[in-house]
Amino acid sequence: MVKFSLMPHEEQFYTLFENSARNVVKAAQTLKELMDNWRDVKEKVAEIAKLEAEGDAITHQIIAQLHRTFVTPFDREDIAQLAMALDDVVDFIDSSADAMLLYKIVESTQRSRELADLIVQATEEMAKAIPLLRNKGELKKMLTCCIEVNRVENVTDEVYRSAIAELFDNTKDLVMVIKWREIYEHLESATDRCEDVSNVLEGVALKYG
Amino acid sequence: MVKFSLMPHEEQFYTLFENSARNVVKAAQTLKELMDNWRDVKEKVAEIAKLEAEGDAITHQIIAQLHRTFVTPFDREDIAQLAMALDDVVDFIDSSADAMLLYKIVESTQRSRELADLIVQATEEMAKAIPLLRNKGELKKMLTCCIEVNRVENVTDEVYRSAIAELFDNTKDLVMVIKWREIYEHLESATDRCEDVSNVLEGVALKYG
Amino acid sequence: MVKFSLMPHEEQFYTLFENSARNVVKAAQTLKELMDNWRDVKEKVAEIAKLEAEGDAITHQIIAQLHRTFVTPFDREDIAQLAMALDDVVDFIDSSADAMLLYKIVESTQRSRELADLIVQATEEMAKAIPLLRNKGELKKMLTCCIEVNRVENVTDEVYRSAIAELFDNTKDLVMVIKWREIYEHLESATDRCEDVSNVLEGVALKYG
Repeated sequence: MVKFSLMPHEEQFYTLFENSARNVVKAAQTLKELMDNWRDVKEKVAEIAKLEAEGDAITHQIIAQLHRTFVTPFDREDIAQLAMALDDVVDFIDSSADAMLLYKIVESTQRSRELADLIVQATEEMAKAIPLLRNKGELKKMLTCCIEVNRVENVTDEVYRSAIAELFDNTKDLVMVIKWREIYEHLESATDRCEDVSNVLEGVALKYG
Repeated sequence: MVKFSLMPHEEQFYTLFENSARNVVKAAQTLKELMDNWRDVKEKVAEIAKLEAEGDAITHQIIAQLHRTFVTPFDREDIAQLAMALDDVVDFIDSSADAMLLYKIVESTQRSRELADLIVQATEEMAKAIPLLRNKGELKKMLTCCIEVNRVENVTDEVYRSAIAELFDNTKDLVMVIKWREIYEHLESATDRCEDVSNVLEGVALKYG
Repeated sequence: MVKFSLMPHEEQFYTLFENSARNVVKAAQTLKELMDNWRDVKEKVAEIAKLEAEGDAITHQIIAQLHRTFVTPFDREDIAQLAMALDDVVDFIDSSADAMLLYKIVESTQRSRELADLIVQATEEMAKAIPLLRNKGELKKMLTCCIEVNRVENVTDEVYRSAIAELFDNTKDLVMVIKWREIYEHLESATDRCEDVSNVLEGVALKYG
């Protein structure tokens, strides 16, 4: 890809991060569709797994790029952490979807639909912040997105807690308790990782903004 | 806070770390009180959650300070790791307390009281070591505390293993097995994180002492 | 140890990493023997615990050496990450073995034997790559091992998924489901950590090869 390699290194980082963020949003939206409609479950889970693999490939490209670049637009560690935190978000979205298939879940729950919706909110907010990395003058604007990601994460926490409490209170079938507890944990971890992304962005905004 | 901003940066790091360590000890002691007396459960859990939020705020201040400071008293990475490891200890103390409320536990167990007591021991030892960071000549003295933290962590490991074995052997109610296993895991993780703190301190003592 | 301290620092790192890798392989082989023959269970688990402690000691030596050395053969972070990732592999091998003793498991399962065999494959491949670190001209050869580790990790993932699905489908005793799920998770995490080792090696090959 000659065109790509002629781009300045900074540009390549920004493009890769934007691709990664868009990929995360797509995974989140697919999960929400799966939860909301519970149709073509196998296909949707496979689609998410494909997005997870694409996320891996992008992360790999960022790290490889980091190894080849001497002067980076931000601290090397920030770049590595941002790449890995974005990757972790898709990983947990994928784990949730995958567990539902593996555990032969036959329908989503109200709480799982709420959690999937919150993941979409958190990832979309994240994806709004990432393009602001391109312009030092705009870095501080990322802070608004970060505050919103943290708010969504707090709401998620509460929904997760209610989901777990209800699970133990209302579920007669202990196998279902075990299965859904794991699914809820993965869903909650996805927004936790969004908060990690947001913390890296906040650090960058404070250092360079 | 004019007075604060006039302090040299080193001083600020030491003060923040000491605040963080004291906060961890307070959380541990509150957990022990909760376990020992099992009174005002909701209030005590809320108190621990408040200390967890305070720990978050201190960690945030340390990281922000790190971003603003060019010359740091120790490697930037040691400072970041120490801040986050201290934060993790409170997080697990909070998770244990929170799980007991969430799972509507009606009384503590002998093993949970033993584990809470060990967490107090480990955190108090840690809090003894942290003020020694201020004086390069005293860094090596931290090693005695580190050895003690590691000893307490080993005892905790044994108590945790016995707790889990007994849980599976003696508990008829599988729901209780699931709930207490998670609580014991959080309690054990709290001293694991104390060991992480101790490992960072040991590294600092070896490099700078 | 006069002889050792006269060795150049680079040499010491290579030797320590090779010792660590060999130690990981030994732990993996002992686990496989345990799974395959299910004889002298207590002794075999104790042997693995001893190898885990030896792994800890080697990791400690690498980190201490890193603190004493100004010019390192690779990025300090790569060295630290490699040391810790190797350590994590033994930790998960040890956790699997330990859980089987703790949970009073009376025989291994077909799936656990398959997983133990895959761990041996992954660790042996890793141990083939590590000595190549000594020679910048050979670094790129590590990539073949890395590809193989990743392949084994993918197979492990599939076996793990089948193991979990079968566990929920075929096991009447829910206590067994809980116990084996944890053991399978530890076994799968061991090859996950091998992939972490392999990722560090890949990074080093790309940067310095």
